[in-house]
Amino acid sequence: MTDPCIICVAITGSLPRKADNPAVPITLSEQIESTQEAFEAGATIAHCHVRNEDETPSSDPEKFAALKEGLEKHCPGMIVQLSTGGRSGAGRARGGMLTLRPDMASLSVGSNNFPTRVYENPPDLVDWLASEMKTHGVKPEIEAFDLSHILKAHQMWKDGQITDRPYVQFVMGVKNAMPADREVFDYYIRTVHRLFGEDAPWCAAGIGPNQIVLNDWAVSSGGHART
Amino acid sequence: MTDPCIICVAITGSLPRKADNPAVPITLSEQIESTQEAFEAGATIAHCHVRNEDETPSSDPEKFAALKEGLEKHCPGMIVQLSTGGRSGAGRARGGMLTLRPDMASLSVGSNNFPTRVYENPPDLVDWLASEMKTHGVKPEIEAFDLSHILKAHQMWKDGQITDRPYVQFVMGVKNAMPADREVFDYYIRTVHRLFGEDAPWCAAGIGPNQIVLNDWAVSSGGHART
Ligand SMILES: [Zn+2]
Ligand SMILES: [Zn+2]
Ligand SMILES: [Zn+2]
Ligand SMILES: [Zn+2]
Repeated sequence: MTDPCIICVAITGSLPRKADNPAVPITLSEQIESTQEAFEAGATIAHCHVRNEDETPSSDPEKFAALKEGLEKHCPGMIVQLSTGGRSGAGRARGGMLTLRPDMASLSVGSNNFPTRVYENPPDLVDWLASEMKTHGVKPEIEAFDLSHILKAHQMWKDGQITDRPYVQFVMGVKNAMPADREVFDYYIRTVHRLFGEDAPWCAAGIGPNQIVLNDWAVSSGGHART
Repeated sequence: MTDPCIICVAITGSLPRKADNPAVPITLSEQIESTQEAFEAGATIAHCHVRNEDETPSSDPEKFAALKEGLEKHCPGMIVQLSTGGRSGAGRARGGMLTLRPDMASLSVGSNNFPTRVYENPPDLVDWLASEMKTHGVKPEIEAFDLSHILKAHQMWKDGQITDRPYVQFVMGVKNAMPADREVFDYYIRTVHRLFGEDAPWCAAGIGPNQIVLNDWAVSSGGHART
C-alpha cells in the first residue's frame, strides 16, 4: 500500500459544456493548458475526449492527434489515454484514433444501462476495439460499469485478446447502472485480486457527486484515482 | 433452509427448436402436456414462452392467453409466469400479455451483452413493464444477468415501482454476460440477503450446460431452481 497513487485527470469528458461549468476545457489550447496544470500538480494520466466547435463530442482522429501531440510536447512523460467511449461516436468510428498509438485507451467490454438509454458495446465491436489496441500496442483501461465486465476482461486476457494483465476502472454512480455502493466496491476489489493477483492495480471513478466519494474510497483502499 | 424448494419449469424457452431437441414442446397442446407432467412431478411455476407455427418466438397476447387458460385448466394451482424477454418481441410488444394478469412475469431491469448482440432493456421500457405489472397485479421475477440488476431491483422496490419484495433470479453462463462463477454466485446470495432480508427467497438459472451446475448450487444453498 506504499505504491504511489496514480491520478488520472479526465480533463474534458464527453458531455459537460461551458454552460455547465465555464472551467471545462473544450478547445485544444484549453485542454493542453488544463492538462499541463494537472500534470504539474501530480497527475500522470490524461484521459482525453475531443469536441467539435459547438462543444458536441467527437471521435475525429485528427482532433485526437492534435491533442496527443500537444500533450506530449507540454507534458513530457505524461501517459495519454484516449477515450473510445460510446458517447463520442458509434461503431468502429469509436476506435479510429487507435492507430495514433496512444499509451492507453479506455475499453468498455460489456453493455449496460445509462440514465436514459442503453450503453451499447456489442460483442463484435468489443472484439474489434481490443484487437486494434493489441495491434497498435495500446494498453486498455477496462471500464467496469458492472461486475461481469471484470470477469469479461479476465476472459479476454486468458484468450489473448488483452496482452497485459487488465487494468480495471470501477465506474460507479451512473443512474441505472452500478450505484456507488461500498459493499460492491469492496467486492470489486476482491474480484480484481482473485482474478488478476493480489498486487493487481485498479482505479475507480464516480460520476457527478460520487466522484469525491469514489476518490476517497479508492485512495484509502490502495487503488488509483480518476478526477 | 427447511423451506420446500420451488421448481420453476421453463417448458419451451425462446430459442430451442425441434431440430435441436425433438422433445421441446412447441405447440399449445405439447406445452400443456409437458407442463402437466412437470406439475405432477412437483414443479409449481411454469415459465412460459409462446411460438409461431414456424417455431420462431412470439409475444402475441392471444397465444399467451390460450396457453395460460390451458395451464390453469390442466395444472390447477400452478403459478403461471409469462416471459417479457427481449427475444420474443421488441419494445412494448414485450409486455402486451401483462393485461392477462398472469401470476408472474419475468422482468429484466438492465441491459447486458448476449453471445452475439446487446440485450437491450432501455430504462423507459423497464419502467413501463414494471408499471404494467404493478397495474395488473403481476408479480415480477427479476432476471439478474449482472450484479447491478439486483441493486436496480432494490431501488425500484424502494421507489414503489415494484410492490412486493423483489424475487430475483440469478442468470449465469450466458456468454458475454455473467459466467457461472461460484464466487459471484455466493456474492449474489449475500447481496440479496443484505438488500432484501436474510429470509428473502431467490432462484437461479444456468444456460445450457450450466443449468445442472446452477441447479446444484441453488438447491444446496437454500435457493429455488429453474429447469
Ligand atoms: Zn499498494
Ligand atoms: Zn471518458
Ligand atoms: Zn430456507
Ligand atoms: Zn424465458
